Amino acid sequence: MRITDYSWHDFAALPLDTKSRLLAQSDGAPFHTLFAQQFNREMLDELGTLATEIRTIAKSKTGMKFLQSLLCHKRAMLYFSQPSSRTFLSFLSACQILGLSTGEVRDSATSSEFKGESREDSVRTFSSYFDMIIMRSRQKGLAENMAWSLSNSDRPIPIINAGSGQDQHPTQALLDIYTLQRSFERRGDLRDRTVVFVGDLARGRTIRSLSVLLMAYPNIRQVFIAPPQLQIGEDMLASLDSHGIKYELGDDLRAALPTADAVYMTRIQDEWDSVVGESTRIDTTQFHIGVDEMSLMRPDAVLLHPLPRRTEISVEVDHDPRAVYWRQMRNGMWIRAALIATTFGFGRRIHEYFREDL
Amino acid sequence: MRITDYSWHDFAALPLDTKSRLLAQSDGAPFHTLFAQQFNREMLDELGTLATEIRTIAKSKTGMKFLQSLLCHKRAMLYFSQPSSRTFLSFLSACQILGLSTGEVRDSATSSEFKGESREDSVRTFSSYFDMIIMRSRQKGLAENMAWSLSNSDRPIPIINAGSGQDQHPTQALLDIYTLQRSFERRGDLRDRTVVFVGDLARGRTIRSLSVLLMAYPNIRQVFIAPPQLQIGEDMLASLDSHGIKYELGDDLRAALPTADAVYMTRIQDEWDSVVGESTRIDTTQFHIGVDEMSLMRPDAVLLHPLPRRTEISVEVDHDPRAVYWRQMRNGMWIRAALIATTFGFGRRIHEYFREDL
Amino acid sequence: MRITDYSWHDFAALPLDTKSRLLAQSDGAPFHTLFAQQFNREMLDELGTLATEIRTIAKSKTGMKFLQSLLCHKRAMLYFSQPSSRTFLSFLSACQILGLSTGEVRDSATSSEFKGESREDSVRTFSSYFDMIIMRSRQKGLAENMAWSLSNSDRPIPIINAGSGQDQHPTQALLDIYTLQRSFERRGDLRDRTVVFVGDLARGRTIRSLSVLLMAYPNIRQVFIAPPQLQIGEDMLASLDSHGIKYELGDDLRAALPTADAVYMTRIQDEWDSVVGESTRIDTTQFHIGVDEMSLMRPDAVLLHPLPRRTEISVEVDHDPRAVYWRQMRNGMWIRAALIATTFGFGRRIHEYFREDL
Repeated sequence: MRITDYSWHDFAALPLDTKSRLLAQSDGAPFHTLFAQQFNREMLDELGTLATEIRTIAKSKTGMKFLQSLLCHKRAMLYFSQPSSRTFLSFLSACQILGLSTGEVRDSATSSEFKGESREDSVRTFSSYFDMIIMRSRQKGLAENMAWSLSNSDRPIPIINAGSGQDQHPTQALLDIYTLQRSFERRGDLRDRTVVFVGDLARGRTIRSLSVLLMAYPNIRQVFIAPPQLQIGEDMLASLDSHGIKYELGDDLRAALPTADAVYMTRIQDEWDSVVGESTRIDTTQFHIGVDEMSLMRPDAVLLHPLPRRTEISVEVDHDPRAVYWRQMRNGMWIRAALIATTFGFGRRIHEYFREDL
Repeated sequence: MRITDYSWHDFAALPLDTKSRLLAQSDGAPFHTLFAQQFNREMLDELGTLATEIRTIAKSKTGMKFLQSLLCHKRAMLYFSQPSSRTFLSFLSACQILGLSTGEVRDSATSSEFKGESREDSVRTFSSYFDMIIMRSRQKGLAENMAWSLSNSDRPIPIINAGSGQDQHPTQALLDIYTLQRSFERRGDLRDRTVVFVGDLARGRTIRSLSVLLMAYPNIRQVFIAPPQLQIGEDMLASLDSHGIKYELGDDLRAALPTADAVYMTRIQDEWDSVVGESTRIDTTQFHIGVDEMSLMRPDAVLLHPLPRRTEISVEVDHDPRAVYWRQMRNGMWIRAALIATTFGFGRRIHEYFREDL
Repeated sequence: MRITDYSWHDFAALPLDTKSRLLAQSDGAPFHTLFAQQFNREMLDELGTLATEIRTIAKSKTGMKFLQSLLCHKRAMLYFSQPSSRTFLSFLSACQILGLSTGEVRDSATSSEFKGESREDSVRTFSSYFDMIIMRSRQKGLAENMAWSLSNSDRPIPIINAGSGQDQHPTQALLDIYTLQRSFERRGDLRDRTVVFVGDLARGRTIRSLSVLLMAYPNIRQVFIAPPQLQIGEDMLASLDSHGIKYELGDDLRAALPTADAVYMTRIQDEWDSVVGESTRIDTTQFHIGVDEMSLMRPDAVLLHPLPRRTEISVEVDHDPRAVYWRQMRNGMWIRAALIATTFGFGRRIHEYFREDL
């Protein structure tokens, strides 16, 4: 069966692992990247290796020229109807590193949509001019719908979901995993660890995707620390249960910190408030990391944050070597370059260059 | 006589064929592309051939590298004060295919215009930094005025009109002609055909430009189907009369469809309403193509639409092989690449590569 | 001592010449370009020479390919939170000439800032993805603060100030000096000249920076012609006094014009009005140059303007060969390319190519 054998209605209703198989190319790499669940342990390791190779190759001008020659014949559309400088610039840089030309629609006011065109037609328009669409949207499931739609057109091109609605932000999860891999590689790998998630766990799509990917690693204990109103959703807990993953819920950050190998902080996602100001009525003062809280963390633990931050991590913490969030952000550029290269089947060529020509 | 021998006032008043001669380079190719009437049959055929060659060359990475090397030393300014994702991205892609770097001003809010600068000075500014200006504006005649102005400056660079006011959108006409050429090439060429225009013929600049270009082909019958309030302008009919072109007017789409070799649908251009909501008082329900209407069309007829569409063509029609509007949109990218290459005198180099190196 | 040995508070309080030394690379070229005072006579001459070489090399396609190969492995971020098409496009073009890829944040509405991120974090984000930040802001001292902040991070990358607040716009001053150098090179160099500044001298940061750079040249007489309310600030006069520079103040343009080697016109900077409309109550009708005023200028004098202009220079004046403001604007692109090349240490490579390969 292929994706084109399903109606949109039937495809949308399939279980995630079936969808993942349908979305894979013959070498298992995803054609469309839509949700974190598409990536198994083997693929995560492969992407991490590739990202590190690209990072290393990019250190020299000769290496950069090699990388830029790989996809210089391709063009990518960055369709960001939900604003995000960070994810946008990270993908833009990843494209530039691999030599892709880019076009962009970032602001719906500059688009044709005001002329009453459907989103389906807009995306199909982009597919006429470009070889890949990287899209971000407030609308849940839109990337998936567009991927199905393109796969059924006479110009199927890959889509990468750069964040859709509150549910999925798969490349953020990839960069988080990659950051954890790198943080722990000096002392073993990503197994038998405790990861503490803190903040707005109800609405942060980042932590949902990361929590899912962590299930691919042996014996990861997940701890969710949040105000009761912002605690992780029941559906996520059910998913963890069904996979036999150990987890704990709580609202006492200071008690959880000494147990953590990694702390994953998030900000309050008040742009999703159903009533303006709703979030401000929740007391979040206890869900903050300053120099004091850092002193409770182990010497070899790491502190992550998807950024942007507000006040949940003090600026003073930035100089602590355990604060890896700036490196985490730069990791995003490398893992996205790895994903794009893989999507177009250039992973092997990069491995070869790394082994033989560097 | 050259364009610099005229004041703006005198130049603007010249007949179109005189202007066309003044705008041509020594090889006849336009220096500035301002209106559809500049293109005669020979030039349309040359551009179509070149577009097809570029499309073919672009299929391989080697070919793309050749194309990108042609104009890598040039930079183009995309000045779109009237928003349009579609035309913008099409030109952007055409530039990228030929290796031009690009800059853009799409939103007047981000421009210096708020500081009280005249449009003339803005365009002259762009000419300081770029080697070509591709401009789109709501203001009738602006592209022509800017072209005259640049030709009289000490840095004359070519302008391509990407749509100005309600009157001219010459590259849309080029892509429409190219699509008709390709649609009919299997069974002869673009002569002795019936083209049925449908929709808002009063305000759609696309159909005005296409109607003009069709006069270059022998024995094309033009049929205009629209609500009376949106019927084609008297000036267009006078122009058809003066060239001895056969045409018909009507408002019965179902009667016209069986006679058509090509149907050119357009949407209601309500952004040009003089009173908001004006268009909604016109009954346009009969000017719609669905699966039923397709059944009235000949098996070898084609259905075009400049896009974006609203409801005037049902989504179900997209899968009909006679619906060529998505291909038409991609044709726009290739014909624009052909036009830009021609403007810079690189047409011959592409022909050579196509003949000898492909 | 290095910049990292100071707290921000201590660094900000240092005298400009100390800051300049701290900001210089081992070859004396600035690492960060923050204020006009960083550039001494020798550096200004070197940049001017380099700009002219780049301009000459860029005339051929082979030369453009050489230039584009220099920094093709680098990426620059254009962070323009204060809108400016002109400066933006000039820097964009300079980057493209040298082969840098670029990203941009031009409109704060499309940035992450709405999520409550600090500017410091935004700039640090950009530094994660790019190799240089070119920034323009309404906020006085922001570029300097960001430069200090980046120099103290684990990813120090150069910043170029493309205009900050009312105080500094160093690359505008560089292009003004370069234009004066070129204007006078036929008849000696930039010494023993009278430069007349006209217009809004209180708020135009351009003239402040240029006035400072002119102190590097021997025996330049500076004349400031403005309505009393918009006359040059006391701090500037104190600075001129302390360097023993001759200057005059006045409000009679027609009297000053015959004495000028160069006239530097500026527009009323009403975007800095503390009350809307404040500037309109000042009579500026005498601070205008038309054909009549040109007749008062010497045959070999030159007329500059940083642009955009409003009505302070009549359009008719554009055709006078002494009106060099359009060339001045294009000079901006070349001098910025020279500055970027120098920042990355590629000045010598360009000199070599110019001497040996052209």
